[in-house]
Amino acid sequence: MTDSAPSHGFLFDKWLHLYAERVETMRSSEVRDLLAVTARPDIIALAGGSLDIKASNLGKVSDIVADVLTEAGPEALSYGPSEGHLGLRKFLVKFMADEGVDCDVDDIIITQGGQQALELIAKIFINPGDTIVAEAPTYVGALNAFLSYQASIIQVKMDNNGMIMSNMEKTLKDLRDKGIQPKYIYTIPNSQNPGGLSMSLSRRKKLIKLARDYQTLIVEDSAYRRIRFEGEDIPSLKQLDSANVVYIGTFSKILSAGLRVGWVIAPRPIREKLVFAKQAADLCSSSLAQRIVEQFFHETPVNNHINKLITVCRRRRDTMLDALDEFFPKGTTWTKPIGGFFIWVTLPEYIDTTAMLAKAIQQKVAYVPGKAFFADGSGRNCMRLNYSFPKEKDIKEGVRRLAEVIEQEMELYKRLKV
Amino acid sequence: MTDSAPSHGFLFDKWLHLYAERVETMRSSEVRDLLAVTARPDIIALAGGSLDIKASNLGKVSDIVADVLTEAGPEALSYGPSEGHLGLRKFLVKFMADEGVDCDVDDIIITQGGQQALELIAKIFINPGDTIVAEAPTYVGALNAFLSYQASIIQVKMDNNGMIMSNMEKTLKDLRDKGIQPKYIYTIPNSQNPGGLSMSLSRRKKLIKLARDYQTLIVEDSAYRRIRFEGEDIPSLKQLDSANVVYIGTFSKILSAGLRVGWVIAPRPIREKLVFAKQAADLCSSSLAQRIVEQFFHETPVNNHINKLITVCRRRRDTMLDALDEFFPKGTTWTKPIGGFFIWVTLPEYIDTTAMLAKAIQQKVAYVPGKAFFADGSGRNCMRLNYSFPKEKDIKEGVRRLAEVIEQEMELYKRLKV
Repeated sequence: MTDSAPSHGFLFDKWLHLYAERVETMRSSEVRDLLAVTARPDIIALAGGSLDIKASNLGKVSDIVADVLTEAGPEALSYGPSEGHLGLRKFLVKFMADEGVDCDVDDIIITQGGQQALELIAKIFINPGDTIVAEAPTYVGALNAFLSYQASIIQVKMDNNGMIMSNMEKTLKDLRDKGIQPKYIYTIPNSQNPGGLSMSLSRRKKLIKLARDYQTLIVEDSAYRRIRFEGEDIPSLKQLDSANVVYIGTFSKILSAGLRVGWVIAPRPIREKLVFAKQAADLCSSSLAQRIVEQFFHETPVNNHINKLITVCRRRRDTMLDALDEFFPKGTTWTKPIGGFFIWVTLPEYIDTTAMLAKAIQQKVAYVPGKAFFADGSGRNCMRLNYSFPKEKDIKEGVRRLAEVIEQEMELYKRLKV
Repeated sequence: MTDSAPSHGFLFDKWLHLYAERVETMRSSEVRDLLAVTARPDIIALAGGSLDIKASNLGKVSDIVADVLTEAGPEALSYGPSEGHLGLRKFLVKFMADEGVDCDVDDIIITQGGQQALELIAKIFINPGDTIVAEAPTYVGALNAFLSYQASIIQVKMDNNGMIMSNMEKTLKDLRDKGIQPKYIYTIPNSQNPGGLSMSLSRRKKLIKLARDYQTLIVEDSAYRRIRFEGEDIPSLKQLDSANVVYIGTFSKILSAGLRVGWVIAPRPIREKLVFAKQAADLCSSSLAQRIVEQFFHETPVNNHINKLITVCRRRRDTMLDALDEFFPKGTTWTKPIGGFFIWVTLPEYIDTTAMLAKAIQQKVAYVPGKAFFADGSGRNCMRLNYSFPKEKDIKEGVRRLAEVIEQEMELYKRLKV
C-alpha cells in the first residue's frame, strides 16, 4: 500500500474494529504457531477438525475421478449451475429423506462446505449491528462469518441437553424489550462443535416455539449429525418446523473437507436470495468436486460408509475420555460427546488457555484455545480437543503431555498464591 | 417462509432494492430460457464463457488426479491453508514472473476462481453507497459482486484502446467535486470481457497516474491476458505499479472453470484482510482442485498448453468475424478482438436485445443481452457473442441464424415506422 491509499471501507474501518480482539487472537504468535505446527510430525495435533482420511475408505477416489471424467469430463471441468449439480442435489433429496426431511431438488443449493452456507446466510440477512443468537460456546467459523458482516452475537448457555431454554427465552425477551429482533438463532443441535452434545427433543420443540413467538428464524447447522455414537436419533429442527428453519449440511465431516462440498436447504424466498449471493460469491461450486461426491455415494451406500467412520471415531473418543480420566488433574472437567469430533475441556478459572498454548506446543501437543468459540472473549480457561484425526496412541500421549502442562500451570498458580 | 417471518436485512431490504432491475433481468423468462437452453444440443449457444474443454488437452486429468492422490491423498482431501496450497502458490510465482510481475508466495491468495477474488475485494472495501469505477461495458460477475455489497458503479466509455482517459479524468474529477472518493477502479485491461480489446500502454500509464492523483486503488482483472491472438504483450498494471494495484488471475480461462481456482495478489495490508475474508467465506479452496492445477502444469509446460488454446480460439474468432461480415446486416457493428473469448456487437438503437432473445432462441441460437454488462440499464441494443466454446461450423450457423433474427427486427421496425 502506498501513502496515498484511499480511506477504506468495511474491514478497514468497521469490521476490523469490531473484530479486533478476535483478529488479535487469531494472529497472535501462539495461534500462528498452532496452525503451523499441526503439519509437523513431532507435534500431536489435537487442534484440527478433520476426518482421518486414511481411516475412511477414500482409497477409491482415484477410480471414482476416472469414472467421473470418462462419463462427463467436459461438464465436470466446466462451469455448472449456481444452485449446484443436479445429480448431487438428487442424491441429497434421498440423503435428507433418510433424516426425515422431505425436500425437493429445487430446495437445495450446493455450497463450498457448510462454511459458505454460513457466509451466504450472513450476507443476505445481516446489516451492521444486527443481532444473532447462538450457543455458548459455538463453532469458530460461524462466529467469523457473522462477525465479518458486523453482527452483534449473543450466546446462550448450554448444559448436557443443549441451550438452556429459560436462558434463551430471557435473552429473546430482553432483546424484545430493547426493541431488538434477532435476525436468526444459529444452532448445531447434534453432536455440537465444540462439546459433542445434542439438544434434547423437548428443547428443540421449545426452541421452535420461541423462534416463532419471537418472530425469528432458526439456522440449523447439521455438520455432525451422522457421526452419532449412542442415544436415539433426534428429529432435526428442519424436520420439526420446515418453514422456519434454514438447514446446513456438509460432506466435510463424512467424506472429505478438501472437496469443499456442503449444502443449504431454505424456504423459497430465502433460497432465491442465496442463489444470487452464491452467484456473486463464486459463480458455482466445483463441478468436479460435486461429481466426485455424487459418484462416491453412487458406488458406496451412505450408511455403510458412515458406520465405518463412526466405529473409528467412537473408539478414538473412548480413548480420549479414558486418557482424560487417567491423566487430567482434579479441578478439570470435560464433556462426554455423544457424537462428533470434539471434547470441550474446562480448566480452573485462573488458567488462560491462549497463553498456555505456547507451553503446550513446547511439549509437542496442540489444541484450540476456548476463547475462539465465543464472540465476547469468554472461554479463556477452556479448550477444544479433537479425537477424530489423531491415532489412538497419539490421543493417549497427547492428553498425557497436555495434563503435564496443565499441572505445571496449577503448580505455578499455587506457588504464586502462597 | 411463515407469516411470522422476521424483517430481513441486506438482500431483503436494501440490496434487492438497488439490485431490482438486474434481478428482474436475470430472472426474466428469456434469460432463464437462455440458461436452460445452453445445455440443449439443438441450440447453438453463443452465450457461454467457457473454454472448449475437449479442445484443450485435458484428457490426462484422470492420470493427474491419480498422481495427486497417490502422492498426497490425505492432504488433497483435507482442509488446507486459507491462503491456498503452497505448491500452487510457488507455481504462480513463476507464472507471474513470466508476465513480468515480481511477487512472493506470501503475496498470493488462492480463490474460488477470479469471481471470489472480486467478491472478497468488494467485501473488504465496499460500504453501502460507496463508488466503484469500471469499464463500460464490463464483466457481469464483477457488477454482481460489487452490487451485492451495495456499491454505486460508474462506468467509463471505451474505444479500441480501452477506457478513454479524458472521460476517466472527468469522472474522477466530478466525483471529487462531490466529495466522493471511489474505493477502486476495476478494469480488465487485456482482451477485455465483453469486447476482446486491450488497453494501450499509454492509457495504462495515464490510468496509474490518475489513480494515484485521485488516491484510489486499481483492481486489475487479468482473466484473459494469456489468450492473446496478435499484437504485442503489454505490461500489466500490476507490473507498472505494484503498490497500488490488486491483481486477479484465474485458471478458468486457460485450464478449467470447473475446478474453481483463481488467485489474487495484493499489497500486504489488503492481503491480510482478504485472508480473513476468505476464511469467513469458505475456510479454504478445494485442496484437490488446487493440486490438480499444480500437477497439470508440473507435467505440461504452461506456454505449450496455452499456445494450443490460442490456436483454437484464434481460428474460432476468425470464423466468427468472417461470419459476421458475411451475414450481419448493415447498421450493425462489432469489435475485432485481439484476444479472449468474446465479440461485442452493437445493433441499431431501436433493437432491444433482451426482448429479442426469445426470438433468437426460437431460431435456436443464444447470446447474452448487452444490458447485463452495465449497472445502469445501458447496452440494451448490444449483445455478447462467445466463440471459444462452439465449434466452427456452429459459430457460422449460429451467426447466420442470429443475422436472420436481427434482419426480421429491422424489417419490423421499418414497417412500423412507415
